[in-house]
Amino acid sequence: MPEPESVPVSACGGGLVVGVDSGGSGLRVALARAGAGEAEPGGRVLETVTSREPVRTGAGGIDAGHLLAQVLPAVEAMAGRATGAGGRGGAGRIVAVAVGAAGMATLGDRLRAELPAALERAWGVRRLALAADAVTAYAGALGQRPGAVVAGGTGLIALGTDLSGWRRADGWGHLLGDCGSGAWIGRAGLEAAMRAYDGRRGGSAALLARAERRFGPAAGLPAALYPRTDRPAVLASFAPDVAGCAVDGDPVAAGILERAAGHVAEAAAAVCPAGPAGAGEVALAGGLFRLGEPLLGPLRAELGALLPGARVVAAAGDPLSGAVTIAAALARGEVRLPEDPRLLQLTR
Amino acid sequence: MPEPESVPVSACGGGLVVGVDSGGSGLRVALARAGAGEAEPGGRVLETVTSREPVRTGAGGIDAGHLLAQVLPAVEAMAGRATGAGGRGGAGRIVAVAVGAAGMATLGDRLRAELPAALERAWGVRRLALAADAVTAYAGALGQRPGAVVAGGTGLIALGTDLSGWRRADGWGHLLGDCGSGAWIGRAGLEAAMRAYDGRRGGSAALLARAERRFGPAAGLPAALYPRTDRPAVLASFAPDVAGCAVDGDPVAAGILERAAGHVAEAAAAVCPAGPAGAGEVALAGGLFRLGEPLLGPLRAELGALLPGARVVAAAGDPLSGAVTIAAALARGEVRLPEDPRLLQLTR
Repeated sequence: MPEPESVPVSACGGGLVVGVDSGGSGLRVALARAGAGEAEPGGRVLETVTSREPVRTGAGGIDAGHLLAQVLPAVEAMAGRATGAGGRGGAGRIVAVAVGAAGMATLGDRLRAELPAALERAWGVRRLALAADAVTAYAGALGQRPGAVVAGGTGLIALGTDLSGWRRADGWGHLLGDCGSGAWIGRAGLEAAMRAYDGRRGGSAALLARAERRFGPAAGLPAALYPRTDRPAVLASFAPDVAGCAVDGDPVAAGILERAAGHVAEAAAAVCPAGPAGAGEVALAGGLFRLGEPLLGPLRAELGALLPGARVVAAAGDPLSGAVTIAAALARGEVRLPEDPRLLQLTR
Repeated sequence: MPEPESVPVSACGGGLVVGVDSGGSGLRVALARAGAGEAEPGGRVLETVTSREPVRTGAGGIDAGHLLAQVLPAVEAMAGRATGAGGRGGAGRIVAVAVGAAGMATLGDRLRAELPAALERAWGVRRLALAADAVTAYAGALGQRPGAVVAGGTGLIALGTDLSGWRRADGWGHLLGDCGSGAWIGRAGLEAAMRAYDGRRGGSAALLARAERRFGPAAGLPAALYPRTDRPAVLASFAPDVAGCAVDGDPVAAGILERAAGHVAEAAAAVCPAGPAGAGEVALAGGLFRLGEPLLGPLRAELGALLPGARVVAAAGDPLSGAVTIAAALARGEVRLPEDPRLLQLTR
């Protein structure tokens, strides 16, 4: 079994890298070859492992031990298969690791304190990137190019960079913001349903019918929602119904998606780096944008108005591929995304 | 000590009645003389007791035993003082009780099951009204006249009656509705603060400054809000800041209060009984309306547009006085507010 220290830095191009994406719905880990450079910026993914057990978050923040207990054996098994080495042998060829985690900025202290020593001890790896999930979403969507990424799902955050620093907008959660997110759209749709139930202005009988199909009688909706601990996810689960109503021609549902599109564009505009007109890229990443044309149609119009020079692109890859991109760049000494104590911390 | 049964019904006019107002911030109990009729519709309150211990709500709903453990000794002490009778003697002159409770409609099953027998056993009282807190708010605001009442505080609900039945609007909580409430206004104000922090459109630097004064640095706001179990109250605590900013001329804050006023008027319009123009009364009850002119100015305009015939009045009294009004009417056999299995249940 090769000692971790026996991997020469010059071998990094052919070495292995690990990307990790840790979030509320679980953990995903990818093993990849570092790649040869710009032609293969994201590395070449060899294998991916998914765990549906989210990493625990306790009083001290994200539980580094719980993350390592899932990541180490998964990577060692994948590395063994990739290199033909038994046991933990293949892990000796790992040269860089990038971990993207939801809550990294505010809950990542234990990861920042414990992961560098733990990974050096386990695999001899010194090159480590700790990234907010918005940064891995950015790298997955745009690689290391300047621009802006809106990551939308249950929540919504926008991140932009001119490669000299980061700008962030929203991502403040379902009560303070996440404007235009799945939870925002679903909440607005349920409010319109209850307005119809009450006979208040702004109601939609179509949304009321959909809400009752999904959650039961309208009067029972508060009891179905408030005791839940995953209220934002419950709200977001109604967003596809709002989109469906809009497709069916419901003007209230269409209005909700138009306002959501405005909020998404506002977040993008707040973070998009200034540059020559036509040069900026704005990528839309995450499940929110699978709501389709009822959202994307007005969103293109809003982005055209607020960011007339920007080119709207689909995300090239997901946050896990973004983590691999960062790990591969770190292995090659080519990280161009800016370091930031809360968003992207590099150990070299 | 007179036996409870010794109180003749003909003595009801001179008998004692009890009103109870049970809510999230505690319990209030009033002892009153039943009064002689229309000239004294609300009875004459002799004494009031306040407990800051909210009645417990468990899996079975509002805890009837916990409510009785607070109400019985408080009333017996007041009745003893009122009648000069020692011990529980004065309670024998009680002829009717009205209990208004938050959550009565959905969580009141144990109260409905246990209170009638318990009060007959304790004081020989058979006349009992069990009312939703919105109904006691209505009776406190408008007595037994037809009309509409908007009860606004942290939440918001509108209730209206033509005396043949009730209409209700909103009161669905801070995620599904409570549109225009204190939580709604505070939430919108904090969103505008975070928009200013991000540089998004729709932000207000004045609201951001006020939010940081109240809750600390903006980036820490999610951590200050989301772990709390009383999030609606935290949001509502910012509503006076929104009103203050509006008074200082901030257009974003003024816009929030204008939209809130629109929502309040929509709820009132949905429940206001149809009638000859100019005949309807709409009462504004609760702490929300102490936000003053920044809310009341646009609210008068919105109500004028949606309910051109209505007369907007201040609430005559609070929910506790409403409970006394209902108990006194029950004692005299003059309840005119309509019975409803969830909103107002009478035992005679």
